[in-house]
Amino acid sequence: MEILDIIDKKEKKQKLSKEELQFVIDGFLDGSIKDYQMSAFLTEIDLLGLSDEEIIDLTDIMLKSGQQLNLGVQTVDKHSTGGIGDKTTIILAPLVASLGVNVAKMSGRGLGHTGGTIDKLESIEGFQTSMTLEEFKKQVNEIGIALVGQMGNLVPADKKIYALRDVTGTVDSIPLIASSIMSKKLASGSSKIVIDLKVGNGALVDNLEEAKNLGDIMVKIGNMNNRKTVCVITNMNQPLGYAVGNSLEVLESIETLKGNGPEDLNELVIKLGSIMVSLDKNIPEEEAKKLVKENLENGKAYNKFIEWVNAQGGNPNNIKKAKNVKEIKALKNGYISNINALEIGKLARDLGAGRLTKEDIIDPEVGFVLNKKVGDKVNEHDTLITVYYNEKQVNDEDVLNCFEITKYSDKPKLIIDEIGV
Amino acid sequence: MEILDIIDKKEKKQKLSKEELQFVIDGFLDGSIKDYQMSAFLTEIDLLGLSDEEIIDLTDIMLKSGQQLNLGVQTVDKHSTGGIGDKTTIILAPLVASLGVNVAKMSGRGLGHTGGTIDKLESIEGFQTSMTLEEFKKQVNEIGIALVGQMGNLVPADKKIYALRDVTGTVDSIPLIASSIMSKKLASGSSKIVIDLKVGNGALVDNLEEAKNLGDIMVKIGNMNNRKTVCVITNMNQPLGYAVGNSLEVLESIETLKGNGPEDLNELVIKLGSIMVSLDKNIPEEEAKKLVKENLENGKAYNKFIEWVNAQGGNPNNIKKAKNVKEIKALKNGYISNINALEIGKLARDLGAGRLTKEDIIDPEVGFVLNKKVGDKVNEHDTLITVYYNEKQVNDEDVLNCFEITKYSDKPKLIIDEIGV
Repeated sequence: MEILDIIDKKEKKQKLSKEELQFVIDGFLDGSIKDYQMSAFLTEIDLLGLSDEEIIDLTDIMLKSGQQLNLGVQTVDKHSTGGIGDKTTIILAPLVASLGVNVAKMSGRGLGHTGGTIDKLESIEGFQTSMTLEEFKKQVNEIGIALVGQMGNLVPADKKIYALRDVTGTVDSIPLIASSIMSKKLASGSSKIVIDLKVGNGALVDNLEEAKNLGDIMVKIGNMNNRKTVCVITNMNQPLGYAVGNSLEVLESIETLKGNGPEDLNELVIKLGSIMVSLDKNIPEEEAKKLVKENLENGKAYNKFIEWVNAQGGNPNNIKKAKNVKEIKALKNGYISNINALEIGKLARDLGAGRLTKEDIIDPEVGFVLNKKVGDKVNEHDTLITVYYNEKQVNDEDVLNCFEITKYSDKPKLIIDEIGV
Repeated sequence: MEILDIIDKKEKKQKLSKEELQFVIDGFLDGSIKDYQMSAFLTEIDLLGLSDEEIIDLTDIMLKSGQQLNLGVQTVDKHSTGGIGDKTTIILAPLVASLGVNVAKMSGRGLGHTGGTIDKLESIEGFQTSMTLEEFKKQVNEIGIALVGQMGNLVPADKKIYALRDVTGTVDSIPLIASSIMSKKLASGSSKIVIDLKVGNGALVDNLEEAKNLGDIMVKIGNMNNRKTVCVITNMNQPLGYAVGNSLEVLESIETLKGNGPEDLNELVIKLGSIMVSLDKNIPEEEAKKLVKENLENGKAYNKFIEWVNAQGGNPNNIKKAKNVKEIKALKNGYISNINALEIGKLARDLGAGRLTKEDIIDPEVGFVLNKKVGDKVNEHDTLITVYYNEKQVNDEDVLNCFEITKYSDKPKLIIDEIGV
């Protein structure tokens, strides 16, 4: 087999066999296939797609490129394809754990606009995000919840492919996204998988049809591997909740765990939490929903959060916000019709809340808190958004330009579709 | 400007500006754009194409990436896109030079099946293919003909891009072929350009429609740069002439220069020679054709060949063939309906006539001489082809499998189309 023949076959839109895909992944990992050849192949996939069968084969090959964890207990994983202000894991994990659902989660650092879940949790003083597999298993067994960064040698093929996709414009390919997410989810050993697939201007996928295709194939891959998988497609055209920025999002998560969350974030947490509990306990979603709502109201979800933070060395009473605060005000009356999530994310990064390169250091204290969301009525001089900043600042006008105000606007629908339920 | 934005723009099928193309070429040459990024961009061009305007811009940018020669006299260049048994330059150059047309040609070594023109000429004992620009100009002025390998720093962008195309499956892209050929032709300073565009199984392009598109754009680029350009599309579904292999092809060239060439090779040389003479002298092609045929018959073309070879240090009386000879015979009666040019080329390479890598050393003496061509009648036990070999051998059956024999077959048309006349 030769990589040039496989590149040529793909160019001719012929189906690739599992052996051919295996040859590509093996060769890329052992260095016999060069970066520039892999880049040509990934660009072909980006432009021409892959069949479902090829995506399933590719995922399986990537999965088997490294270690596969066996946690010894039934666990439920929740994955988000990422969006601005997305702090749902920090709420969901203790929420469902408080109902006896085991959550053993690996999570990433952020690269792009704002920090990842790991970065957000590290804004809690003392919170440790690295542990051994034994420590991880022990904590899951003891308190039903543990969350770490990298652990073990899971899916080395994805690590190497992702690094190349990031610099060759192939991050937005549906087959590559599906195989990347699902190989990691399968390798991390969760029994059930719930995926929050964000669609919109602040998400990886901005087209609903593509999102549905991605959801379909991910559910198919999960179920084929005997991991019951559900995908919920949700709106990411404005930030989720009010807070954008690491410690600001943790503080908002705590409020939500206490039952005081913003409407959209609360709705999403209840929806995803109900599915997770329903899958784990094999009970109807409506029944699970009651349990979820109860534990948000009776303090049990919040107590589990405190237990979890303490178990990982964090001090939940010491979460700092930046001291400099500036309010940005509306210039006219009307209704908010749009908040550009992507721009808000980039501006948060400019304040220091995110990274452009792996070497950048995040400022956990900075970011934004929205005072208004899409569909809200505003009067001239009302505060639209509050900026929390330290050394780095952003232009007020750039922030203001993220908001569109028109005569009237409805609240947008948050939960768009469900696949696999 | 950012390369990822340009890759993204191309993915969205938006037209690239000349500034954007310049940014890509400059960045690739100075190393700020990496091989894997250029590979993604070239793969996009391979799969999505470029508009005529983009191809013209790209050619101009590549042309200006290096030195442009000024030879001080009017010259006519002939370029072939390459095929099996293609020795036309060795015949055409002295043929038209014998009629007072200056030929100042740079030519390449072969990489792939059989040697390039330079490799073929080096099978003549003593023939030198490197000289300085001054020596080159002097020889053109004195005898009207000179042929060298690499000279000067012409089109460095093409050298670097071609090396990457060769290992990333992007050699067959029409826009990339057009810009590569035309930037080099324009840089080498010829006043008129005749392109022999081969189409068929043994050629870079195997589809007539693509060949016509390639011919159209090359003629357009040449004419826009005030170099009158003509493109002749010719059949490359069987080897050209009888001989395939370096010294064997030189010997066949000498026979053709003496008026004893194979029918197809003779037809092609007269056609291309007539166009070259017609362009140079600004006379009708029919009139040029008479002159060309005369000089093939009266010995003047052959004499010019001898003068040329002597000028470059070669001994035309010492051209060696391999001593081991084997005849491969037909197993049945019929007519030859197909000779697989590509396979013959690969088998010739296996005998040592070509290179797989730049480091391989060519055996100038080995190769094939066909005894039959497509449309010829054969009887069982007639010799189809004669193998000349030294150390390396090929399987008789593999050679025999290159021939298809059916009940009846016509001779194929050699000259398929002309563009720009």
